[in-house]
Amino acid sequence: MSDEATIAAPSPAPPAPTGPPPKVTNRGRAAAPAASANSETSDIPEYEYFIQPGPRGYPPLTEYLDISEVDMMKRPDESNKIAHHTALYHSDYLIVRRGQEFQVKITFSRPYKPAEDKFALEFVIGSSPQFSKGTYVPVFPTKQRQTTWEGRITNTSDNVVTMAITPAANCIVGKYQMYVAVVTPYGIRRTRKESTRDILAFDAVFLDDETERQECVMTEMGIIYHGSYDDIAERDWNYGQFNYGILDSCLYIMDRAEMPITNRGDPIKIVRVASAMLNSRDDEGVLVGNWSGDYTYGVAPTSWTGSTDILLTYNSSKMPVCYAQCWVYAAVFNTFLRCLGIPSRVVTNYYSAHDNDGNLKTDIIMDENGKIDRNRTRDSIWNYHCWNECYMSRPDLPPGFGGWQVVDATPQETSDGMYRCGPASVQAIKHGQICFPFDAAFVFAEINSDVVFHSRRKDGTLEPVRVNRTHVGRLVLTKSPGDVTRRDITDQYKFAEGSTEERTVLEKAEEYGCKREKSSPPAADVDVVLPNLEISVGDNFELNVEFENKSDERRTVDAYISGSVVYYTGVAIEIFLYLTDKKEVAIVESKKYMKRLVEQANLHFIVTGKIRETGLIITAMKVVTLRNPKLIIEVSGRGKVSEEMIATVEFTNPFSFNLENVYIRMEGPGMMEPKSRYYR
Amino acid sequence: MSDEATIAAPSPAPPAPTGPPPKVTNRGRAAAPAASANSETSDIPEYEYFIQPGPRGYPPLTEYLDISEVDMMKRPDESNKIAHHTALYHSDYLIVRRGQEFQVKITFSRPYKPAEDKFALEFVIGSSPQFSKGTYVPVFPTKQRQTTWEGRITNTSDNVVTMAITPAANCIVGKYQMYVAVVTPYGIRRTRKESTRDILAFDAVFLDDETERQECVMTEMGIIYHGSYDDIAERDWNYGQFNYGILDSCLYIMDRAEMPITNRGDPIKIVRVASAMLNSRDDEGVLVGNWSGDYTYGVAPTSWTGSTDILLTYNSSKMPVCYAQCWVYAAVFNTFLRCLGIPSRVVTNYYSAHDNDGNLKTDIIMDENGKIDRNRTRDSIWNYHCWNECYMSRPDLPPGFGGWQVVDATPQETSDGMYRCGPASVQAIKHGQICFPFDAAFVFAEINSDVVFHSRRKDGTLEPVRVNRTHVGRLVLTKSPGDVTRRDITDQYKFAEGSTEERTVLEKAEEYGCKREKSSPPAADVDVVLPNLEISVGDNFELNVEFENKSDERRTVDAYISGSVVYYTGVAIEIFLYLTDKKEVAIVESKKYMKRLVEQANLHFIVTGKIRETGLIITAMKVVTLRNPKLIIEVSGRGKVSEEMIATVEFTNPFSFNLENVYIRMEGPGMMEPKSRYYR
Repeated sequence: MSDEATIAAPSPAPPAPTGPPPKVTNRGRAAAPAASANSETSDIPEYEYFIQPGPRGYPPLTEYLDISEVDMMKRPDESNKIAHHTALYHSDYLIVRRGQEFQVKITFSRPYKPAEDKFALEFVIGSSPQFSKGTYVPVFPTKQRQTTWEGRITNTSDNVVTMAITPAANCIVGKYQMYVAVVTPYGIRRTRKESTRDILAFDAVFLDDETERQECVMTEMGIIYHGSYDDIAERDWNYGQFNYGILDSCLYIMDRAEMPITNRGDPIKIVRVASAMLNSRDDEGVLVGNWSGDYTYGVAPTSWTGSTDILLTYNSSKMPVCYAQCWVYAAVFNTFLRCLGIPSRVVTNYYSAHDNDGNLKTDIIMDENGKIDRNRTRDSIWNYHCWNECYMSRPDLPPGFGGWQVVDATPQETSDGMYRCGPASVQAIKHGQICFPFDAAFVFAEINSDVVFHSRRKDGTLEPVRVNRTHVGRLVLTKSPGDVTRRDITDQYKFAEGSTEERTVLEKAEEYGCKREKSSPPAADVDVVLPNLEISVGDNFELNVEFENKSDERRTVDAYISGSVVYYTGVAIEIFLYLTDKKEVAIVESKKYMKRLVEQANLHFIVTGKIRETGLIITAMKVVTLRNPKLIIEVSGRGKVSEEMIATVEFTNPFSFNLENVYIRMEGPGMMEPKSRYYR
Repeated sequence: MSDEATIAAPSPAPPAPTGPPPKVTNRGRAAAPAASANSETSDIPEYEYFIQPGPRGYPPLTEYLDISEVDMMKRPDESNKIAHHTALYHSDYLIVRRGQEFQVKITFSRPYKPAEDKFALEFVIGSSPQFSKGTYVPVFPTKQRQTTWEGRITNTSDNVVTMAITPAANCIVGKYQMYVAVVTPYGIRRTRKESTRDILAFDAVFLDDETERQECVMTEMGIIYHGSYDDIAERDWNYGQFNYGILDSCLYIMDRAEMPITNRGDPIKIVRVASAMLNSRDDEGVLVGNWSGDYTYGVAPTSWTGSTDILLTYNSSKMPVCYAQCWVYAAVFNTFLRCLGIPSRVVTNYYSAHDNDGNLKTDIIMDENGKIDRNRTRDSIWNYHCWNECYMSRPDLPPGFGGWQVVDATPQETSDGMYRCGPASVQAIKHGQICFPFDAAFVFAEINSDVVFHSRRKDGTLEPVRVNRTHVGRLVLTKSPGDVTRRDITDQYKFAEGSTEERTVLEKAEEYGCKREKSSPPAADVDVVLPNLEISVGDNFELNVEFENKSDERRTVDAYISGSVVYYTGVAIEIFLYLTDKKEVAIVESKKYMKRLVEQANLHFIVTGKIRETGLIITAMKVVTLRNPKLIIEVSGRGKVSEEMIATVEFTNPFSFNLENVYIRMEGPGMMEPKSRYYR
């Protein structure tokens, strides 16, 4: 009907809505809603007649070839699992890689006659299988009839036929039901649904380098680097991507995200969704972030030693797991990716800038005398930040941007409305091509930002007085493949500082709207240097500040030393030291900083000053990582099979005070369940 | 503390979470949360001392220059509003365009002495104003001290100083508080906060063409095209972007989206957020979509005649408004954009394909005899679809992709996890550069998809038998600037069908993963043609199907005519006609299709057939728009000012049956509030 005389709603004036808006319906907008749950399955009829029933009803299809047994050949020792490198998975299904042939043994009621017998294997996924959407895939044994999945008969001996199937290299990743269907002139007759015949198609592994592939897909134990640039620490992690239930947890994560089944053939879309789902922000995802130091009602991020607990808990409780910080997000993400057969590794970026909207500056604000203004200094630089790299082609981008892609599940800033990051091509980042999806600009800023010291005038305006262009993104590390050593991959993210390539890249990035600090204030002719310190928790120590006069005239400096306890995110917890006199030695007493110490806290010293003669500003920054008292673990015996061992844990309290409420947590991957003990 | 001996949480084993996860805290992760509400303001102290209090406390700043009056010069007749083309806005604030100078009159307690008196205007937005983030902007009258916003004194007469301010062209769009601050040696003294001094910075208008700028920013009444390709219909719409309260509603929409204040200077980010917020999906946005034909508890989409009601209702109720279909989304989005000074227009695409995951095919499935399989045919083509174009530069993309950008608020498919679409560069779409954000690939498919007729084999596989490459995206229309005629802008979206450029573009798009139908099945040598029909609702009519034999041999066709009532989205409501004999004339009786008619429904005929001699398939499609009985409106008198007028509405029922429960809704923009009347 026309707009004028339309059959309008009872009340044409907009009613003041009460309660939530009416349930949204797809009716009229789309023919059918898109299937978005792998767990939902559809039942395919056992008999499907082509013909109308005759006077005597339908002819019995049982006259034709009958299937008495189907063997998925999924025992660990069998060709399928070995050829597909999936022998390590503990699961109830056959797991195969995309684009790689696997075999199925079918036992018929009588010998198979290629001439007259017609049969097909059918693979079905999701609730509304459609051939054109790749959710219903029949596979035929004959050359003449081939679909996106290839099929051929590799062996026939009396009643047993061995058929080889090659799933399309870009097929949907997930759990399929397999049917064997016999095609007769009157209709189709199939085997009943049986979960023992489910298969999981996984990602083919494109990574050429064999050692890297071993490391980034098959290796279950890993090392994650943390600490600070000049004092790198290591953390072992048990990724456990092959453990029982992990695979299902990964599928559940995609279902929970209501990711359309038809998108699940595309690794780009999969990792994008996962980077959002692994944190609990805005989608009830896997891990709740907590940097506060108060971990009541959850597990302290530093207590985790592996991903298995976390993923299984999420899958069973359907609730976000508490708590995580960046390396936990990266580690669990790594498990997800390796489990799906997407090569991945955890990388650590030292002095990682926390970008706010494509601005390449980290602002440190001082008053006119060069004294830090802690209240107005809002930006922070993470001492280190962990993210993931995953290896894939990028057909959605111009050639040359495939290979390693950055993905990050830590909720830092929202990307296009949700807490997620990537996949961003490492190549694109290195060459400043930050116009390509996803979030290349954000990652670019994390490793390329400048630290800008501003002097704040009385009228509230800021004047940049010093720019440090080399502090951020000082070092990017990952574990060496097939080895326990660290590997410096900084050069994969940026060209050498000061090189012409570097400048071109930064200019290119600016074309795409990355704002940088243009002004380059004159360098002062006095250097200030802070020493490297090795300090254990509880130590008192001296901080010697060196001033080096590079001019041949007299220089007087009004210097300020500010020391604070910072989280590894660089956010100040408490300022414990403030020297305004011109002493060159600051005495730091432990009781000053011990009060507000959280795990992984560091002491962050900033020296700023103004040269009287020239009025120029000098600055120096230093992060001092506090060494922790070590635990000494001794194990009795040589560790024979089925022989008990006793582990003694020794710990010496270095502090002048007594420790109270101490927890000790132990875990022996494969030997011992996580145990915890409490001491008064 | 170390990982080994960390002060762990009370229970190191993951507790089965109960209830929602703990409140997420930013503590430790970031120094301060990002401000994301324009409505939240911060109070700036009236006195800000630079010095420590002396023995007699602080010196009184009142000794210095005092401000007795501030005039924002916002009366419609004053220079500000005229120069900024904002005289039409009904609002309490001064509204200025970015990058354009505006003036403020300040009356001091005594004549202003440039030599000794120091003062500044301060513009503050959001809850945590920072100079470095552009949320606190001081503006100085002196050349020597300039910030991103320029200031100069244009006139001084005794106590009155007129100052001109030019906001940065990329400054944040939103509501600022303005303060006048006097800077003294001892501190700053400012005027108190006063809402009469609020200003709104709006977008500068980059569009060069004067007529287009008038149309796309200033014009309040518009025409939206609908109907079908060969029977175009028009709908008038009252955008009302200048109406009282609309501006605030637009700001509320951004606040409701919790859009970070610092992002609000970037039109790209603003329109991206708005395209998600204008539909209620996944973010409780402005409009609830409903295509079902049942509009109980809301307004039928066809009943709306303007945007004002909708936006005001949303702002006051804070609840999504019921109901919308594509043109309502596009119309209200248009109001939002024009209100913010972003040039925009509503465009209509005829035969708009509904893409599913970057696949460029619309599948129509037939059985082996060429008979349509309605159950298996899931894809649909919208008879028409409306979206918006907005004009802006795209610094985030390589040069050449600025200008008109497609944005679409209709919830069709999720883009990167939310129902939204764009901004996608029209240039990028035309040239197949669909790798650039945002959603260029989706829009590309809407206008370039192929219609593929598949013949479904008994074994479930599909064989493409006919491909129609010209049906989709047949015509793109918008209103001509400064005129009430329609303008064909199809050539801005694609090159001429069959041209070499067109082929190159499609190949380019395929490089970026747009899958198309490769096979080109042989064309049949028989054409089937459906006539153009002009049918009014309730007519019985004959459908003559012409078969043209282009070969010189005998041809026998087994043809099937399928007719269905479809929504404008192309989704079938009911199949009312199914002819399987070889008659060339189909009689269509109104009672067959009247039953399930909804407003804007069309009759959709598909003829398919198989040529016996060659086995080739022939197809034809036709959408017949039903003409509606017109209303005749007569108005008494010539319509003198303050003279009553009587409008008579006449309506003849063309149907053989009596109408019941009829509503008539009238509105006279500017003259009469929406009225509605009900007839039994």
